Amino acid sequence: MYSIGVRDHIMIAHSFEGAVFGPAQRLHGATYVVDLELRRASLDAHGIVVDIGLAAELLRSVLGALNYRNLDDAAAFTGRNTTTEFLARAIFDRIAARIAAGALGPDSEALCAMKVTLHESHIAWAAYEGALPAAPAA
Amino acid sequence: MYSIGVRDHIMIAHSFEGAVFGPAQRLHGATYVVDLELRRASLDAHGIVVDIGLAAELLRSVLGALNYRNLDDAAAFTGRNTTTEFLARAIFDRIAARIAAGALGPDSEALCAMKVTLHESHIAWAAYEGALPAAPAA
Amino acid sequence: MYSIGVRDHIMIAHSFEGAVFGPAQRLHGATYVVDLELRRASLDAHGIVVDIGLAAELLRSVLGALNYRNLDDAAAFTGRNTTTEFLARAIFDRIAARIAAGALGPDSEALCAMKVTLHESHIAWAAYEGALPAAPAA
Amino acid sequence: MYSIGVRDHIMIAHSFEGAVFGPAQRLHGATYVVDLELRRASLDAHGIVVDIGLAAELLRSVLGALNYRNLDDAAAFTGRNTTTEFLARAIFDRIAARIAAGALGPDSEALCAMKVTLHESHIAWAAYEGALPAAPAA
Amino acid sequence: MYSIGVRDHIMIAHSFEGAVFGPAQRLHGATYVVDLELRRASLDAHGIVVDIGLAAELLRSVLGALNYRNLDDAAAFTGRNTTTEFLARAIFDRIAARIAAGALGPDSEALCAMKVTLHESHIAWAAYEGALPAAPAA
Amino acid sequence: MYSIGVRDHIMIAHSFEGAVFGPAQRLHGATYVVDLELRRASLDAHGIVVDIGLAAELLRSVLGALNYRNLDDAAAFTGRNTTTEFLARAIFDRIAARIAAGALGPDSEALCAMKVTLHESHIAWAAYEGALPAAPAA
Repeated sequence: MYSIGVRDHIMIAHSFEGAVFGPAQRLHGATYVVDLELRRASLDAHGIVVDIGLAAELLRSVLGALNYRNLDDAAAFTGRNTTTEFLARAIFDRIAARIAAGALGPDSEALCAMKVTLHESHIAWAAYEGALPAAPAA
Repeated sequence: MYSIGVRDHIMIAHSFEGAVFGPAQRLHGATYVVDLELRRASLDAHGIVVDIGLAAELLRSVLGALNYRNLDDAAAFTGRNTTTEFLARAIFDRIAARIAAGALGPDSEALCAMKVTLHESHIAWAAYEGALPAAPAA
Repeated sequence: MYSIGVRDHIMIAHSFEGAVFGPAQRLHGATYVVDLELRRASLDAHGIVVDIGLAAELLRSVLGALNYRNLDDAAAFTGRNTTTEFLARAIFDRIAARIAAGALGPDSEALCAMKVTLHESHIAWAAYEGALPAAPAA
Repeated sequence: MYSIGVRDHIMIAHSFEGAVFGPAQRLHGATYVVDLELRRASLDAHGIVVDIGLAAELLRSVLGALNYRNLDDAAAFTGRNTTTEFLARAIFDRIAARIAAGALGPDSEALCAMKVTLHESHIAWAAYEGALPAAPAA
Repeated sequence: MYSIGVRDHIMIAHSFEGAVFGPAQRLHGATYVVDLELRRASLDAHGIVVDIGLAAELLRSVLGALNYRNLDDAAAFTGRNTTTEFLARAIFDRIAARIAAGALGPDSEALCAMKVTLHESHIAWAAYEGALPAAPAA
Repeated sequence: MYSIGVRDHIMIAHSFEGAVFGPAQRLHGATYVVDLELRRASLDAHGIVVDIGLAAELLRSVLGALNYRNLDDAAAFTGRNTTTEFLARAIFDRIAARIAAGALGPDSEALCAMKVTLHESHIAWAAYEGALPAAPAA
């Protein structure tokens, strides 16, 4: 199995509901350094998993919709805690939908799995991984 | 599949038996930067894999029993080489037992897998991963 | 010249005023991974620059007053842009004041310089460094 | 499942054919920081996955044949784009062949899987992983 | 003293002349992860050392002229070994000239020093640092 | 000012005397990831600060005398706490003596400063830096 990965980041504000979050119930923020990993069983005719330039652009585009925002105000997340693991899934779903819509080119149907990892500090991270093509997001 | 990870470290002394270890047969030591990763198929009602604060405390507590010690004197490891991979498993087993005993809360029975990685330098590491709930340690 | 360093982090929300900040004028946030470095010309009788445990506690204590907060609401920063470089100085000043008040023990008057570095992502950081004992903060 | 990993690097020149590569069609180069990971279900009598010294030597030896070279001139790669993912597989195959030939000792037949990751920068990487013993390279 | 830093990278081919370089006399290549650090005694009215977006663009622009190239063919470097330390200086000089020409805005005359660091692998790096405004490159 | 750096590591055991060290008074150990940095005002005729291969060999050789040892038994350190900052100086002095003896070649007299940094974990480090040629070690 082959895989390729690209890294980018976002800087957001948010707050959490629930005593389990302690001081993180207050409005605070995070830098998420985001790793996107794509897997494929065999390489294409050019010897690649996917055009890594397109993959980096796709990641940047999906992150761009979240970047420099207060996620408490994002309509898409109303009533949800935008935890690191929740965001990993949300970003996974958005990228999967864009891949399904052709953002990585016609050959990208050969991609079989994806992982999105968010590093929130030097000592904590979360990820979501699943098969491609992904089932529609719940 | 979701995962979350937390990082901590220990500083220990030990020695190894067996010509395969070369100069590491002498009493020496290591800093192990330890990554604990927990996996779960779906998020709980708060939108988390597990309370990351509890996970960090559990890792710190299990590591605390080993930290600043000469592992050659640890009764639990008598007659065993405390290699990086052996310690990854030992720490996995201790954390698994604590999870089974409720250290991560009642909802943690939904955790399905765990990985413990020990980085011994910038160029070497070892890990043990397995299903949760784990079988009792041998 | 000797130096020792310790690392910790904070997660905050804030916004900036001024067209130069572009989308960062919106409420957003950051994880700052913070490095504290202390310098001294010679070691003390124990062979150390300073008790590294006390240094780590001091850093944690000073960061604790900022952690999980919206800095736009912090009275100490009213009317100021809490940029990475501004915060590096603010944290420098608070630590310097605590050192002057004895937080690192009596022998810490031998410390001659300090540097505070804030890493805001994998591709950007800022720092403030200066002599110790520091002049009172402006 | 246990795993151990070692890291080394190579510095090579190459160029790619195909419009998808944009400016990377020109002769350029890369440092690849290479991670070799070996997996095994249980430890040997010494408490190890494999002699990590032998693993590091094997990685260095296989990388040595590529290091400080223009891969466009390498007979083994004629007519192929030596992309990061292609090289991950090529290095995997060469290491697998050497393991099959006994480079990691007699007990290494217990190794069940291997992963080779090439980091080409702080924001991009590729990998190939597969079962051991590996099928002969195509 | 304040400082801010930004990171980017280039991927180049080159060869060296001189027995001291051993196998690096052959045509090979490198990824250089490049850190640009700018220093200033006091912050501007916005609370910044310099517009970090402009600094990142300037670094990208100067690196762009070198990226994906065989430096042996670069007229500017004829007869010179493009070692890591030589390139650190070349990039320093080009950035300094662009700053002098206003690339970081009118207020950038307050910048007093700059450092350019090139990481060529996980175990080796080189840097050039000097005062600003810099003397014209030799 | 130019600088070059190389990285290597050691794994040692030791214990400390003095209540200030708390649990580190027990026999424990550490991995020290060691960075050696050498500075010089101008490049030599080959365009380098120093032969980086020789610098890496010198670092490896000096570290080799400490590696896989219990520093409590090292005659050179009798009665001293081998703290991270103390070891940074000890390694600095040994390298400086070897440079004075010609280990980096005849041209190395142009080296004007050196820094030795020991990373003891992902959250703590210490360093010693000074002029070259260094005064004889006390």
